[in-house]
Amino acid sequence: MRDTYHEELDSIGESLVEMARLVGSAMGRATTALLDADLKLAESVIEGDEKVDDLQRDLETRAIQLLARQQPVATDLRIVVTSLRMSADLERSGDLAKHVAKLARLRYPQSAVPGHLHATILEMGQLAQRLMAKCADVISTKDVDLALELDTDDDAMDSLHRKLFQSLMDDRWQDGIETAVDVTLCGRYYERFADHAVSCANRVVYLVTGEHADELDTGAPVEGAQ
Amino acid sequence: MRDTYHEELDSIGESLVEMARLVGSAMGRATTALLDADLKLAESVIEGDEKVDDLQRDLETRAIQLLARQQPVATDLRIVVTSLRMSADLERSGDLAKHVAKLARLRYPQSAVPGHLHATILEMGQLAQRLMAKCADVISTKDVDLALELDTDDDAMDSLHRKLFQSLMDDRWQDGIETAVDVTLCGRYYERFADHAVSCANRVVYLVTGEHADELDTGAPVEGAQ
Repeated sequence: MRDTYHEELDSIGESLVEMARLVGSAMGRATTALLDADLKLAESVIEGDEKVDDLQRDLETRAIQLLARQQPVATDLRIVVTSLRMSADLERSGDLAKHVAKLARLRYPQSAVPGHLHATILEMGQLAQRLMAKCADVISTKDVDLALELDTDDDAMDSLHRKLFQSLMDDRWQDGIETAVDVTLCGRYYERFADHAVSCANRVVYLVTGEHADELDTGAPVEGAQ
Repeated sequence: MRDTYHEELDSIGESLVEMARLVGSAMGRATTALLDADLKLAESVIEGDEKVDDLQRDLETRAIQLLARQQPVATDLRIVVTSLRMSADLERSGDLAKHVAKLARLRYPQSAVPGHLHATILEMGQLAQRLMAKCADVISTKDVDLALELDTDDDAMDSLHRKLFQSLMDDRWQDGIETAVDVTLCGRYYERFADHAVSCANRVVYLVTGEHADELDTGAPVEGAQ
């Protein structure tokens, strides 16, 4: 049987996994709302972000209580402090999903994204969701190999982001400035969302190996999160 | 005489003030580099961000050592944990100043900002720098009234941001898509920078009063950071 202390530590880990799953799902639904101009779905994402904020506040309270009561040292201390940082990453990721949903709501009944960019935005949204799902698994399993996959996935996100920018910069852009602004912000939301997922995964790598993700010789191209 | 413990706690506070002063100055210089298309200044901001990152890593190490060795409780524990969160805000603010400088470098020898928006961007840059200078003072003095001023300053930043967007959406916009994208991102960098300054100041308010900034009845319109 585990003691109270380790139960508390585990429960913080479980909250992080729950937050990651919630924000991953939120970004998937926000993307659907954006592409389909679905107002109800957009509003459910916007309202749903409160749950993520509540989870973060609750996690922070419990982490501080655990530090005060149990006074962990060494690795355990590092886990608690890192959990606080990860919860901030995940809370911010929830905000970014909410921003995408707010853009969907702002342009309703139109879609903020022009038809010729639907496929690219869909790919970015799906990739963002997969990155966050992997991030949840990494937090849950502490699987370093899986964590390192996120860096490669993030390279794919950067490629999609560049592709989006190339479309914007193309002389044949016919969709006007407002849409260019919307697409620019959208692209940034997905990119930052992916960065936060990578950042969380890299924190797990550091906890497990004591080395930063970009210091491990993996044979694969690995770039740090921006 | 102060004991070692309080000396260590003070030194963490001093590092936060140093970080805030560095990133405030970086944003001021990045804005000048952007408006004047000054490549050397842009590069000095980009290189200078390493110092901020080093300070953050060092602060984090010292905070964790302090938690492990001194095992603070109650308010002292809260100060250390909050310092970690603030250092993350400030590190991210440094990244945002670097992003502005990178935009200046990318468009050199042109300025990324068209002439008719120089005044607005200058105002945003100066306001961002003032917000961060106040943030440094708030960390240093724990002055709650000064901290609450940042919310009002942030409202001014939001107004400038809206003004920038109105220029972009104006039918008379003649500066093309690339510039619209640059200006959109720039606006976002200043807005997020201000949010981080407000967030740090609000954390000080919470430490001092036990209440969140938006719960205090100040008589002035106060909005929380996004």
